[in-house]
Amino acid sequence: MQVNKANIIEVCPRDGFQNINEFIPTETKLKVIDGLVNSGFQKIQVTSFVHPKAVPQMKDAKEIAQTVIEKYPNVDFTALVPNLFGAKAAYESGIKEISYVISASEAHNKENVRRTIEESFEGLAEIRNRFKDLTLKLDIATAFGCPFLGEVPVSQVLKMIGTALKIGVDYIFLADTIGVANPKQVGETLEAVKDKYPDRDFGLHLHDTRGMGLANVLVAIERGISTFESAAGGLGGCPFAPGAAGNIASEDLVNMLERMDISTGIDLNKLIDTTDFIKEKIKADLTGHLANICRK
Amino acid sequence: MQVNKANIIEVCPRDGFQNINEFIPTETKLKVIDGLVNSGFQKIQVTSFVHPKAVPQMKDAKEIAQTVIEKYPNVDFTALVPNLFGAKAAYESGIKEISYVISASEAHNKENVRRTIEESFEGLAEIRNRFKDLTLKLDIATAFGCPFLGEVPVSQVLKMIGTALKIGVDYIFLADTIGVANPKQVGETLEAVKDKYPDRDFGLHLHDTRGMGLANVLVAIERGISTFESAAGGLGGCPFAPGAAGNIASEDLVNMLERMDISTGIDLNKLIDTTDFIKEKIKADLTGHLANICRK
Repeated sequence: MQVNKANIIEVCPRDGFQNINEFIPTETKLKVIDGLVNSGFQKIQVTSFVHPKAVPQMKDAKEIAQTVIEKYPNVDFTALVPNLFGAKAAYESGIKEISYVISASEAHNKENVRRTIEESFEGLAEIRNRFKDLTLKLDIATAFGCPFLGEVPVSQVLKMIGTALKIGVDYIFLADTIGVANPKQVGETLEAVKDKYPDRDFGLHLHDTRGMGLANVLVAIERGISTFESAAGGLGGCPFAPGAAGNIASEDLVNMLERMDISTGIDLNKLIDTTDFIKEKIKADLTGHLANICRK
Repeated sequence: MQVNKANIIEVCPRDGFQNINEFIPTETKLKVIDGLVNSGFQKIQVTSFVHPKAVPQMKDAKEIAQTVIEKYPNVDFTALVPNLFGAKAAYESGIKEISYVISASEAHNKENVRRTIEESFEGLAEIRNRFKDLTLKLDIATAFGCPFLGEVPVSQVLKMIGTALKIGVDYIFLADTIGVANPKQVGETLEAVKDKYPDRDFGLHLHDTRGMGLANVLVAIERGISTFESAAGGLGGCPFAPGAAGNIASEDLVNMLERMDISTGIDLNKLIDTTDFIKEKIKADLTGHLANICRK
């Protein structure tokens, strides 16, 4: 059931930039988003509506969102929100789709959002009830492993999907937050998920920390999953695993898929130019292969 | 037809070190080989019997080979040879298995060994006739793409396999010399090869230049191929693509396979210690993920 088309959602402006301590000027962020739009991305996670004291890098969330929504009416711009307050701010800035994160691991969820999983689901339900016309996406973090608890049972992921669907989320991503997922595990998890929820589309948010990122993409594709989040340059990481890079690099992902005759709609040359711009302007190690080793 | 056991041949002491300009003291090389043996590798390509003027780094080939063969009688130590002269030197040093490289691309073969493909096969036949009791392995370089000609047709690979088997080589590796192979292509090539030569075992020598290394391992495993060459730390590259890293890192490969319940016989902790030793002693960028990003 291999796919011949993939949807890639670019998350560098949120997930990538979020981990960078030095504030990136809003103008630079907007130029990166310009580059991503010009590369062909139809959906970009541009910011996070969190408290500026928690993540000062995202203090320009409103300005970013409003600017790009006005400038590019045909592109979907999404944002991460941690709670109802963030959802309200995103909504008021014109964002039509939000991502909300709950970890499959209780320990990681507490570290990440200072709530139990149950409390997180209550927060999700609150957002759903309040903002009926927001597209609501749930990211199940640490779905393939947790830095504190090790492997996460598939049953836990299935249970969370069930709860989320009952609440009324629009779609769900499974995230390998710390880059430990292996292809066998990804295959088995996706089979269990598709088996239980055959009519639902799922997406994957993978990291390439241990070099298994694109191998995991491959097993997903072989099982008909065609929606992935990735970040230009491979920026992004997990705050609980210092030095742990990073999201799958969008250009590595596009390169592999296009070479496999799976259409992404992305112009690889323009994307690499954008990655070069990020490299030039932002003080961070890029972990992507094309960004570091070769151009194409 | 997924495998549950893989054979990993470590090539760092030859393929990895060969590209390093500054001479690595023989003692350091021997310590690296000690570490690799202690990690559990049963077969290690330890050197190359080339003219010391062509590759000064390999001028201690005889000493390396003789020392490790005497020290570890239960491990297979192999060497690369470019010609009959090298085969003779390897044989006299006690080496029982040699690798010989011919590129699938005429242009790359000329750059690499200054011969036509036909002349290279003549050289291979010469070695075969002269050293009947040497195990003879052919590496088909640029089997998935060439820096000069682009994609290499599968028919060319099949034709070369046919010629090699007629000459009497013992086994054959397909090498993605410049790290351009994509999983679809690897899958199709391996299917064609297994289809035409169902009773033969083949191995893969993959690079991780564009992040597709382990994804390519995965498609091979799915097709019953279980023999891979890799290099500790991801050392090695292609001299015709400057900055182009590198072999698949052995520790990345072992980590993925073991996580997939595919037994490698390698102790990952000891291998990572060896990689750390290489990192400490040898001035070269390691491109492996575990070597750079996280320990496990």
